[in-house]
Amino acid sequence: MSKIEIKHLNKRLIGSKENILNDINLTFDGEKIYGLFGQNGAGKSTLMSLIADYNKTTSGEILLDGQEIHNNQALINKVYYMNQMDMFPKHEKLEKLFKMISNIYPDYDLSLQKELINKFNVDIKKTFNSLSTGYKSIVKIIISLCVPCEFILLDEPTLGLDARNREVFYRELIASYSKNPRTFIISTHIIEEVDQIINEVVFIKDGRVKINNSVDDIRSQSYSVSGPAEDVDSYVQGIHILEKDRLGRYETVHFMHELPENPRPESVDVEKMKLQKLLVYIMNSEEVE
Amino acid sequence: MSKIEIKHLNKRLIGSKENILNDINLTFDGEKIYGLFGQNGAGKSTLMSLIADYNKTTSGEILLDGQEIHNNQALINKVYYMNQMDMFPKHEKLEKLFKMISNIYPDYDLSLQKELINKFNVDIKKTFNSLSTGYKSIVKIIISLCVPCEFILLDEPTLGLDARNREVFYRELIASYSKNPRTFIISTHIIEEVDQIINEVVFIKDGRVKINNSVDDIRSQSYSVSGPAEDVDSYVQGIHILEKDRLGRYETVHFMHELPENPRPESVDVEKMKLQKLLVYIMNSEEVE
Repeated sequence: MSKIEIKHLNKRLIGSKENILNDINLTFDGEKIYGLFGQNGAGKSTLMSLIADYNKTTSGEILLDGQEIHNNQALINKVYYMNQMDMFPKHEKLEKLFKMISNIYPDYDLSLQKELINKFNVDIKKTFNSLSTGYKSIVKIIISLCVPCEFILLDEPTLGLDARNREVFYRELIASYSKNPRTFIISTHIIEEVDQIINEVVFIKDGRVKINNSVDDIRSQSYSVSGPAEDVDSYVQGIHILEKDRLGRYETVHFMHELPENPRPESVDVEKMKLQKLLVYIMNSEEVE
Repeated sequence: MSKIEIKHLNKRLIGSKENILNDINLTFDGEKIYGLFGQNGAGKSTLMSLIADYNKTTSGEILLDGQEIHNNQALINKVYYMNQMDMFPKHEKLEKLFKMISNIYPDYDLSLQKELINKFNVDIKKTFNSLSTGYKSIVKIIISLCVPCEFILLDEPTLGLDARNREVFYRELIASYSKNPRTFIISTHIIEEVDQIINEVVFIKDGRVKINNSVDDIRSQSYSVSGPAEDVDSYVQGIHILEKDRLGRYETVHFMHELPENPRPESVDVEKMKLQKLLVYIMNSEEVE
């Protein structure tokens, strides 16, 4: 199984005094789905562009199966980078655009492309330029799922997509991954929607990796406890609560901690915390260093 | 108070056989905040571009205080349209870009601009082109809130913004509106975040207006009922339930209907439904005709 290793990577933009990425050390193992999170300006897109060799590192290494990706066309061909730049011929009809791209890749999945064009209701007689923001994203998503690359980097793939189309995308991503396991790295600000999809979390803050862990590890000790407010409060007494949701007399409290030793009132229920709540908390927390 | 009236508007794109907008009749009253909703490709951006006279209607009228906006520069100046096209000089530093725009508008709010640049952590030494997707949206948002126009059209203003910056935007929008009431029309796919902000809902489907109503009216008969599952179920028996959320033994059911006549068990609580749940339901519903 292929993997990408990043070692002591630094990136400074020309004319800038500060690194936009600082001493990044990461491994992207084969056949996993990574969520790449971080605030606006954290360096997510820069990192992706470096992996895809759109850009040159200031120092450090990016290796694919032990070899430097930079300037190695055979390796670069294994990485597909969907991003916010509109690099397609703008005035060509989509049918021609799809044909051009499928001609570049020998094993491009034409039957999946046809299926996705239907599912997303894409009108292939339109030009790329005439598409709405959402449909520009959809065309890019379709191509990303059909190229025969081992590493697919998706930079905010759901930008401008409505709720229905986001759902179609998540479903098709999972279907495509199940049929043909490969590595996805997905950056997004809609964490609550990808928490069912990703296996691994990478969180970048101010150009540094703050979290690099599996979803299972992150969720191992985090709970949501619900029931009548007074019973819940007495049960979780002494535990540091991250958040409390209240509806009428019933409440749900969320915490990262072992379960309390207090006896659990019969009226109180315990579940694992949703990844999204957990990530939002961890990301907002200033304690993460 | 100024208002915009749209009468029997149709729009067909050149070379297309179908209208993208069909017999649109809408009034945007002064000093209200409108949410403009609809799926990808529904025609939201097209409608905004017509109001701002970026585009010409196929037939019908768009009036501002009774006069046609089209080709009337004095009226066009009252409308600001923030959109996904990047029409700014790409290689100029932001400080110069901000200066250019403030020079166009006599009463541009320079002090608010300064405040927002700080709150969003914008580096004005950067060029527009070098910004991340999120920061391009932020620069456009800042300008939209500072221009002295009576009608501000925001086409997916939060595109690419992280959770923190979305929050800053919503807060600043409300603050700016409270200080200087004017009309906002906001399109977005993140309905759950704007339901506290908007007063009016316009929902477009397949180029037609399906909902055009105040938030208060929409919410007038819609409830969320929570408590132990068996008590809730017996209380709401016979009512058509839109959705049920369950956590352990407790559940919340949502419906659009008068409250049941059954006696309410003491363990059961009743609240108004959240606008978001309601809108998502209405929008997904095929019954809306």
